[in-house]
Amino acid sequence: MKNTIRLATKKDMKSVHDLIIELAVFEKEPDAVEVTINNLEEDGYGKQPKFTCFVAETDSEIVGVALVYKRYSTWKGEVLHLEDLIVKENMRGSGLGSALLNKVVKHGNKIGVKRISWEVLDWNEPAINFYEQKGADVKRDWDVVHLNENGIKNYLNNI
Amino acid sequence: MKNTIRLATKKDMKSVHDLIIELAVFEKEPDAVEVTINNLEEDGYGKQPKFTCFVAETDSEIVGVALVYKRYSTWKGEVLHLEDLIVKENMRGSGLGSALLNKVVKHGNKIGVKRISWEVLDWNEPAINFYEQKGADVKRDWDVVHLNENGIKNYLNNI
Repeated sequence: MKNTIRLATKKDMKSVHDLIIELAVFEKEPDAVEVTINNLEEDGYGKQPKFTCFVAETDSEIVGVALVYKRYSTWKGEVLHLEDLIVKENMRGSGLGSALLNKVVKHGNKIGVKRISWEVLDWNEPAINFYEQKGADVKRDWDVVHLNENGIKNYLNNI
Repeated sequence: MKNTIRLATKKDMKSVHDLIIELAVFEKEPDAVEVTINNLEEDGYGKQPKFTCFVAETDSEIVGVALVYKRYSTWKGEVLHLEDLIVKENMRGSGLGSALLNKVVKHGNKIGVKRISWEVLDWNEPAINFYEQKGADVKRDWDVVHLNENGIKNYLNNI
């Protein structure tokens, strides 16, 4: 099997979208994905791309994805955020996750950021172990907060 | 006392920086702030601003700040992230935190995002209660992961 990690092209967005759906199912939120293939194509490959995407290919099939973009830390300045790191279920354990993360860290280093961040489910022990082995700091005392679309509407109705 | 919430200008970055330092002290990481006033001025007020900043003023003194930027969700598309919501210690409980958050949610609604996200320390119960009262979902099972500057170097030395 020949594995390749490369920058994704617009044409890859169908396969990337499939992997996004697969991850949402794994995370027990199958209906949460509102982004379409067309959205990914426009958002990633327009005049001002909203993300950078890398894919893992095995024998010319896309079996993994890492999607990143820049954030702004008031402590560290511009930082890189890894939004999704996905490896197709039947390919897990094959080293593709590491290979994708390597690519992301190299990319972060190249653009000169002082931090790469991401989020992890606290019950996903295999992922947490993987990240900690890589030297990342899983901040168990920091939680993520979301105000979703309905939340925004309700909020505005109550002020 | 006259309270105002308004968009910050470049000239406000000194006061904003003071508040960022104050928050870092509260979060027990006083030495973590590497961003300078000059960085904030360049990053927020250049050709491609890296963030949008709102300030709370009381009698013409800046006593609060909310700093936001856009992120990209592979589920929801472009979303808004609230990086910092800071109210000067002696002004907490005065409603300025709510007023700043109101401004952020209005801004998010105006630019049409489907989610506003932020992060909270799980021991900061007053903050968590405040956010939950506002309808936000504190995702206690989602942790934040950081690979910092040294972590990036070590990582690259080991692959």
